[in-house]
Amino acid sequence: MTTTNRLSWKDVRDEIHDAILSGRYGPGDRLPRDADIAEEMKCARSTVQRAMQDLSDSGLVERRRKGGTRVRAHPVTRATLDIPITRREVEQKGGRYGHQLIRRTQMDAPRSVMATFELTEPRPMLRVEALHLSDGRPYIFEDRWISLDTVPEMIDLDLTTQSANEWLVLNKPYNRCDLRFYAISADAQLAEVLDTAPGAALFVIERTTWTDSAPITTVKAITAPGYQLLTRS
Amino acid sequence: MTTTNRLSWKDVRDEIHDAILSGRYGPGDRLPRDADIAEEMKCARSTVQRAMQDLSDSGLVERRRKGGTRVRAHPVTRATLDIPITRREVEQKGGRYGHQLIRRTQMDAPRSVMATFELTEPRPMLRVEALHLSDGRPYIFEDRWISLDTVPEMIDLDLTTQSANEWLVLNKPYNRCDLRFYAISADAQLAEVLDTAPGAALFVIERTTWTDSAPITTVKAITAPGYQLLTRS
Repeated sequence: MTTTNRLSWKDVRDEIHDAILSGRYGPGDRLPRDADIAEEMKCARSTVQRAMQDLSDSGLVERRRKGGTRVRAHPVTRATLDIPITRREVEQKGGRYGHQLIRRTQMDAPRSVMATFELTEPRPMLRVEALHLSDGRPYIFEDRWISLDTVPEMIDLDLTTQSANEWLVLNKPYNRCDLRFYAISADAQLAEVLDTAPGAALFVIERTTWTDSAPITTVKAITAPGYQLLTRS
Repeated sequence: MTTTNRLSWKDVRDEIHDAILSGRYGPGDRLPRDADIAEEMKCARSTVQRAMQDLSDSGLVERRRKGGTRVRAHPVTRATLDIPITRREVEQKGGRYGHQLIRRTQMDAPRSVMATFELTEPRPMLRVEALHLSDGRPYIFEDRWISLDTVPEMIDLDLTTQSANEWLVLNKPYNRCDLRFYAISADAQLAEVLDTAPGAALFVIERTTWTDSAPITTVKAITAPGYQLLTRS
């Protein structure tokens, strides 16, 4: 395949974009196949693919393996979020990482945890409450439930020397992950653990993972005041 | 290409995963090419590709167009986030959408906005403060800056009938987007706009977009108490 003129993928992207904005292709409409666009615009098919990838990354069109490309019925802002292991995150920001196991409790899942995991009956769980520190200061308090059906080996792990967070990310790959982001006010207990004032606004990352429909873990990562989660795309 | 045995992509994924966990392939190591794995495991190359996609989606390996597959030096939790137009989001949740333009101001970018856009000198901007409502109740207050160099047509738009949010998503595709998530406490002014108590914990989505290095817009979407952002992958 050769490029037959100087059309860049940005030129192609802008042309397709204009065709969508002008109403030639409306929400939900199917666009011509990459090969047909390439022929019409006299450019390489890979140039069209690159343009389509960009329009897809920014949420304007949807690419499907066999179904071709469609204009999204409702455009979205699309971003990819990479959440590192907390130790790594602290170190990347230049901090010295520390970890404190506050409490570990073995018990059946309460109703709220059953609902999060979409379980219909209580199952045995390990609850782990732990504090991640940066340069000795509270960074994230995590309140975690781990399914002992799916991860029975958790019982024997020493969580004082390594965090459940790190062990699970390294050892228990998931194929479903639900994330929730929201803000809460620190109650007296959280304020004490995170060394802040009661009522402080705290950003929470709640993450639940499954492997082939079997629950692995659900964790509320309650971040210390001033924490920001960033992503670039 | 045909499948020569009953190995599913999940079997292949689990084998590759075990090979990584066992230390046969360590952090940063290159994995064999898909074709070689397919031959070794006597399965279709597309089966290996599907398995690799899954391991990549969950953050364990990195796929590169030409460079093959590597074990991530530091595994991450990876998620794709789709943020819809606010009107659409309200309607998807079953609410009746409303929009109020609170203030529009034309002025040069202050230092904080210059920094966000990575500008070295002040440039003309339109600042738009607006409230999105669901069933007549405050849903998101947005404090937005729009570059008039990049989007001069913004000056003539009637922002009482359509939100800047919707117009920009539909008309100004970006190819760089920075997102920040954090929590703030409501000050007196925010508490009044969002009809809540001063000090309430508010979740903020800050979004900045550029097109080919030219700033488009930066917006703080300050959500009303109880708001949650969800993503599944």
